Amino acid sequence: MTSVPFTKGHGTQNDFVLVPDLDGSRPLTTDEVRLLADRHAGLGGDGVIRVVPTARAEEAEVRAQAGDAAWFMDYHNADGSPAEMCGNGSRVFAAYLRREGLVEEDAFRIATRGGSKAVTVTGEQYAVDLGPWCVVDPEGARRRGFDSTVRSRGGTELPALRLDLGNPHTVVILPPDFDLAELDLTEPPAVSPHPEHGTNVEFVRAIGQGHIAMRVHERGVGETRSCGTGAAAAALATRWWEGEADDNTEWTVDVPGGRVAVRTLPDGHVELAGPAVLVADGTVTLPD
Amino acid sequence: MTSVPFTKGHGTQNDFVLVPDLDGSRPLTTDEVRLLADRHAGLGGDGVIRVVPTARAEEAEVRAQAGDAAWFMDYHNADGSPAEMCGNGSRVFAAYLRREGLVEEDAFRIATRGGSKAVTVTGEQYAVDLGPWCVVDPEGARRRGFDSTVRSRGGTELPALRLDLGNPHTVVILPPDFDLAELDLTEPPAVSPHPEHGTNVEFVRAIGQGHIAMRVHERGVGETRSCGTGAAAAALATRWWEGEADDNTEWTVDVPGGRVAVRTLPDGHVELAGPAVLVADGTVTLPD
Repeated sequence: MTSVPFTKGHGTQNDFVLVPDLDGSRPLTTDEVRLLADRHAGLGGDGVIRVVPTARAEEAEVRAQAGDAAWFMDYHNADGSPAEMCGNGSRVFAAYLRREGLVEEDAFRIATRGGSKAVTVTGEQYAVDLGPWCVVDPEGARRRGFDSTVRSRGGTELPALRLDLGNPHTVVILPPDFDLAELDLTEPPAVSPHPEHGTNVEFVRAIGQGHIAMRVHERGVGETRSCGTGAAAAALATRWWEGEADDNTEWTVDVPGGRVAVRTLPDGHVELAGPAVLVADGTVTLPD
Repeated sequence: MTSVPFTKGHGTQNDFVLVPDLDGSRPLTTDEVRLLADRHAGLGGDGVIRVVPTARAEEAEVRAQAGDAAWFMDYHNADGSPAEMCGNGSRVFAAYLRREGLVEEDAFRIATRGGSKAVTVTGEQYAVDLGPWCVVDPEGARRRGFDSTVRSRGGTELPALRLDLGNPHTVVILPPDFDLAELDLTEPPAVSPHPEHGTNVEFVRAIGQGHIAMRVHERGVGETRSCGTGAAAAALATRWWEGEADDNTEWTVDVPGGRVAVRTLPDGHVELAGPAVLVADGTVTLPD
């Protein structure tokens, strides 16, 4: 048995187990990640984040792309597989670095498998540059006003827009009088044309000027209380449908787990801002 | 913000947040229990157990029924409501008392809202006397061989037996060639006659002499990885169908979260034995 320190935290209820490994001497095995993320046999989380000095990252590519980012967010999905990046997770990671005094600046960069990301802290809000985004088929979408269709379980077929934010998204705008709570997301929505590598699907309802509410079905996971890139995709699709082209547009996005803000940046990037909560700290016992 | 110590543990993956309150000075509010049990915003558990000296239990009835039990298992469901007792939870509670040196005997009693319960520790196994049990309608069941029917989602109607273990159970014996994994328990099974106050439903498959496997749909919860009284009910129903009347019969019961043992006691009681795992310890932050 080994005792390992941990911190449990969440960003709009997308939750993570953080494992500090401040000298980079203790990589986690796939089985260890699975146990840490197991909600009944372990601690439980949507993902597991090891906190490692960038210089000690195992992957040479991470070190090469890190620039001046001192800390590497070694992110793993609950099934143990390593992942590039997680929008909500990066806020929790940043909040941990600040609380522990590992970073003291209000603006800094963190290293991820998807390259280094800029973080800006303003009070309780953590903003992360998610990088470039695009509409997948702008020509097709312009002709018809949409480029795909989505049907949720027991629902009707609705027009949708595909976006790429490093991962695939399909955004459905619901009629204003539609009650989001009525959606049945217990099964993956049917998307046409069929996305070969799957897609996250966001169902969006307009609340007011620059303000939307959404629910999300994550590829390979199911419905979640929040999805960072999903919230950004939802805001960007709404912006596209409204015909806006200005940079620096800002959106408030209500997700089941809370509220985030999405802003377009001048360089074709998109930024996600929101809270990060560090809930508990302790030690967890791992079998040898 | 208040910092409160906690231990996370599980019995066959029925998992709990334990909060030691060794001088009985800090009852938990409904909101605090809900947050502790919340799997995304809090720590996460099927229930929350406060560890309190029996003499400091708020309810006079608990103190009156406790006998010589020094420690009270102040059990709350994840929704914040107080509950009488939890078979798997009592093992985890007992394991905590032993690890902390609060109890040193191998045989001792713990106080619960359902009266005091005898615990026996043998190596890594914790046995708890669950108290008396009965077949609800022995006459009716004897006439037909069953007293009710159950149909799972998409399945056929199957004969079942109702038992009372302080809480209601309906046990279905599946054909030996039936694959338990095929059962769809995403919806509550349809039980006839309709149980006015609901029922836990156990689907049981015989493995061999004194050995069964089961899956359980818990009343008001859904499918779980283990249910202590459910495992006991499954063994007792199998015993009834096999026509056994001897006391001290012992059954091995495989549940999705592990393996437990069920034994009938001479005084008309039933005992549940199984492992208890203390996974993590630390402090959790609760809002004021």
